[in-house]
This record gives sequence, C-alpha cells and structure tokens, in this order.
Amino acid sequence: MLLALDAMGGDHGPLETCSGAIMACEMFPDLEVALVGDTAAIEPLLKSVSSVARSRIHMVHAEEMISMDEPPAAAMRHKRHSSLRIAMQMIRSGEAAGCVSAGSTGAIVAGGVLVVGRIPGIDRPGLGVPLPAVDRISMLIDVGATVRCKPVNLYQFALMGDVYMRKVLGVQSPSIGLLSNGQEEIKGDELIIEARDLFRKSSLNFIGNVEGGGIPFGVADVVVCEGLTGNILLKFIEGTGEAIYSLIREEFNRRLLPKVGMVFMLPMLKDIWGRFNYENLGGTPLLGVNGAVIKAHGRSRAKAVCSALRVARDFVSKNGVSSIAEELSEGGTME
Amino acid sequence: MLLALDAMGGDHGPLETCSGAIMACEMFPDLEVALVGDTAAIEPLLKSVSSVARSRIHMVHAEEMISMDEPPAAAMRHKRHSSLRIAMQMIRSGEAAGCVSAGSTGAIVAGGVLVVGRIPGIDRPGLGVPLPAVDRISMLIDVGATVRCKPVNLYQFALMGDVYMRKVLGVQSPSIGLLSNGQEEIKGDELIIEARDLFRKSSLNFIGNVEGGGIPFGVADVVVCEGLTGNILLKFIEGTGEAIYSLIREEFNRRLLPKVGMVFMLPMLKDIWGRFNYENLGGTPLLGVNGAVIKAHGRSRAKAVCSALRVARDFVSKNGVSSIAEELSEGGTME
Repeated sequence: MLLALDAMGGDHGPLETCSGAIMACEMFPDLEVALVGDTAAIEPLLKSVSSVARSRIHMVHAEEMISMDEPPAAAMRHKRHSSLRIAMQMIRSGEAAGCVSAGSTGAIVAGGVLVVGRIPGIDRPGLGVPLPAVDRISMLIDVGATVRCKPVNLYQFALMGDVYMRKVLGVQSPSIGLLSNGQEEIKGDELIIEARDLFRKSSLNFIGNVEGGGIPFGVADVVVCEGLTGNILLKFIEGTGEAIYSLIREEFNRRLLPKVGMVFMLPMLKDIWGRFNYENLGGTPLLGVNGAVIKAHGRSRAKAVCSALRVARDFVSKNGVSSIAEELSEGGTME
Repeated sequence: MLLALDAMGGDHGPLETCSGAIMACEMFPDLEVALVGDTAAIEPLLKSVSSVARSRIHMVHAEEMISMDEPPAAAMRHKRHSSLRIAMQMIRSGEAAGCVSAGSTGAIVAGGVLVVGRIPGIDRPGLGVPLPAVDRISMLIDVGATVRCKPVNLYQFALMGDVYMRKVLGVQSPSIGLLSNGQEEIKGDELIIEARDLFRKSSLNFIGNVEGGGIPFGVADVVVCEGLTGNILLKFIEGTGEAIYSLIREEFNRRLLPKVGMVFMLPMLKDIWGRFNYENLGGTPLLGVNGAVIKAHGRSRAKAVCSALRVARDFVSKNGVSSIAEELSEGGTME
C-alpha cells in the first residue's frame, strides 16, 4: 500500500515528517510512503534509513508549499505544484491509496473537496477527531471542516462517524450523541431539533442529545456537532492540557516537596498522560471525501506522523471510504 | 442591602441554601437575606443561627418550586407562587436589591426576562461565567441564556462583559475577544464577521478573534460566544474536572506509590484546585436584565451559595445594572 505524505506540512518541516515515514515503514512491512516535497531538503534525511525500509520510501518533487496563514481555498486552487496538492492528486490518479498532511486544516479540507472530491451523496465533509474519554475513544465530528451546518450535514457526520467506528475501529453498534445545551428534548435550536428528527428516522444507534460534560466520560462513541463548536472545543482541550502543564511546572519550581512527591507519582502520571497524548492517537480522518485523507496535528513530531500514517493504513485496509459510499447508497442519504 | 435567595433551588435544597445564607450574613454585616421557599422546611434550619446574623435573615413563604426538568418558560409563567418567581418579583417591586438561585438555568433566564425585565435597549440577556485562567479570571459570555445569536446580541454581550469587568471586578480597559475557529480575519461565519464589524466600530478594547486554546491562558478578559457554544464549553470544563478526578482516584486505588507521593504534593494540588474550584468563584451574573440576578451552580453547597450571595452583593453595591444601562444610553446600542 502506497501512502502519499505531505513532507512539507506542519510546524517542524521535512525532518520530522520524514522521520515519521521511516518509522512507519519500519513498523509496517506492507507500507510504502511517497514523500512529497522539496527533494533537495528530503534526500539528505534518508541517508540513515535501514535497508529494510529504504526500498519502500519514495520521493516526489513539489516546488511549492502551502503555509498555515494562506487563505486555504485560494492556495489550493493556485498553488498547483504545492506538496499538499500533489499528494492529493496522487489519490485522485490512483497512484496513492491515501494521504497524510500536518499542514493547514483549511487547505486539507479545501483540497479534499477540490482535488480528491466528495463521495457521491455527501454534501459536506467532516473532520472526525478521536478523543480519549474515561473508558473509550469517542469520535468528535466535525472539528472544523464545515463551520456552519444544515441538519443533513450533521446527519451525514453521524453516518460517517458510525461507519468509521464500526469498520475501522471495530466498535459494535456505536452510540451516537448530538451535542446540545441540554439532554432534554426542548434543548437546542432549530438545527439540532431538525437534525434529531433525521437521526431518529435512521437506523443509527442514536441516544439523543448529549451535553459537553458527558464528553470526557465517553457519553457516546460518536459525538456530532457543527464545525465551529467542535473546533473551539478541540482547541480548548489542547490549550487546557498545555495550561495545566505550565501551572504544574510553575508550582513545581517554587516548591521542594512536590519534587519529592513526583518521584512516587511518576508511573501513575505517565499512564494518565499516555491515554491523553495526541502523539499516540494519531491522525484525524477527513470523512466524506473520496479517498483516505488524514490530517496530523500541526505540531506533530516523528512519532505523531507515524501514528497518522498508521491511521491512514487502517482506514485504507478496512475500506473506510467505500464503506461510507455503500452506506449512503443503501438509503443513508436524506435529501 | 436585602438579597432574595431562592431557598428551594439547586440539587441540595434548603439545607445548603439556608446554610449559605447564614454564612454570608455572618461575613457581611450590611447584608440581609430573604429566604424564599417553604417556611415549614426553612424554619427549623434557622435554629442554630448566631444572634448577630439572625435579625438579618427573613423568611418569605412560597408554595411551589420549579424543578430542573420543567419547560422553563412555561413553569415561570404558570407557577406564580414558585420560590424563584417570588424572589424575582421582589426585585421588580423594589423590595430586594438582587436575587440568587441555584435552580434551573432556563427558568432563571426566562424569569429574568419575564419578571425582572430587560434593561431598555438590550435585545437578549447573557450569562457571563467567570472562568479561572492561568493569570486572570476571564468572563465567558454567553453560556446558555441565548442559544443562537444575532450579531447585535454578541455585541451587547461584549459591552455588558466590559462593564462588569470594569465596574464590578475592577479590571482596567478589559480586553474583549470574539471566540472563533481561528484568529485570522477569514475565519468564522457571517455571524462572527458581522459581529466583528460592530466590535470594531465601538470603543471596546477589542483584540479580534480568539481561539478555544487561548481561554485557559486568559487570552482576553471577556470572551464572547453564542450561548450554545458557551454552554457546551462550560459543561465540558466541569465534566473534565470530574473525569480527571475520577481517573486519578481510580489509579490511586490501584497503586501504593502515588499515595506516598500525594502526601508531598498535597499543598501544591490544593493551591491549584483552589484556583479552579467553582465554590470560590461564586455565581454567574445574568447580564442584561433590570436587576442583579445571580445564578449559582446547581450542585452548590453552602459555601458556593455564600459565594454567589457575595457576587450579588458586589454587583449591587457597584451599581452593575445602572452602569450597563448608562453605557447603552451613551450610544452603546447599534440598532
């Protein structure tokens, strides 16, 4: 299986993306990765690759790259030689089975729609992020692909999240919750009420409205919301982790006793941290486009890039895209 | 100053609300509290009150109460003898300077609009919750009074948050951020873009779009959003606190070493917890209604009820309501 990797995407550039690709090829003997980007920058990074992986790592030259602060749709249209666009074209042409990028979310979504194309019947794509909860991994969808939604968008996010949980993550009959400002029927606005009607008429395992407070407890396997809300929530989660870390460090430097205590607590804290660390969780699938497109965190280092490639490999090998397409053609559409 | 307390509101009933009122009256010699509720249930709870506070605690009988699961607007309209409605009528009649309730958010908002009435010029009220951030207290407004907003609603939330921070909390020239899915100008939807234009034309210290990740770091003194988003975020914050607590407890019971470590870390953890504990933060002002209406957390025990009464006392003594009204009449309205 060949996956295209946008080697120029993300905050740490080709050094980390290429190291992640090498790591993934050493881990999965069936995996080939095309490093799409500036070959002059990439080639020196491949010197130390073990011979077992080297033959499965390829280079595809791209003259341009899309930066984080460019208007994403325009960049995707005009930068025809950008690493992200070329990686996506490799899906479209059938050369690559999927692609991974740690680049701009907006550009990945725009490219997914413009270059890879939508699955027939899908109105808008959704980014579904796997979130660690107390007793499970929940998918929060959408976290920023579709800022404002119509009821049918929320319904299709639910449907795609359901397929992803079943086919790719192996969760039986995943529960679906609709994020609202209260569990009661009367809560929410017109969008939520109309979406709920669509969910009810479907064969989804729909458990009704869920509240923000339920997410950390894994109230549902799939939690559906508009992209604006999901994006704010996801970034809040990341920010909170960083803020708590900085607070603990600050308190730590001011006092002696916690340093002693920490020695005893380290194994426990490591376990808890391991559950919540995005480096282990890997990438965020862009669901609804006609190919396996996985977004990695912008700050991804090698390990996180490797995890994102693993997610893409799973998505491809478990036929995620065709499963969504089948589900839709079997009456999943509501329009 | 007389404050009306909905003695029947909240998960723990009159025992905790009355204890909170006693605590507050012992703390503030200028404070009188009217306990509105079932006097048969309240009277026995006042037996042990110190003589210094007893003369400032009054009882006002209410035959009914509004429960958490009633449709709030209908309950507020029809239950004319409910403790919450009577407490709010005491503001309207001028008997009470403000009121506090740990009851249903929806009923408090409905009562604020129907019974207390809006400040002239205010289109919709906003619940502004003080959130602890790394280096300050930020106000997140709205967290559920107005589920979906027009641009003018967001603008008025900003204006009211600004007045509250300046007049009540003493923050000079509070910075105002508009919560969006990215800092860039192109981010957001029509609502956010139109609201941003209103913010720009005003004299507010507007710093532009802010992201969810900035909130824990105190990116702005006032963070403005729609009620749906704010409510989901606020409940997520509360749920995360509970989930982390339960995870740590679980890990703790499984291992011996952390118990030893905890002895050393306790002072540090207590300090961090103290900063984030809602019991110390007190209540959430319902801004935009023509009186000091403070919502306490539904799970409030005596200490949190006491904090909410302190918040109401500050709001009244610093003329929060008339300051908002003046700000509006000085050209704050945009319609």
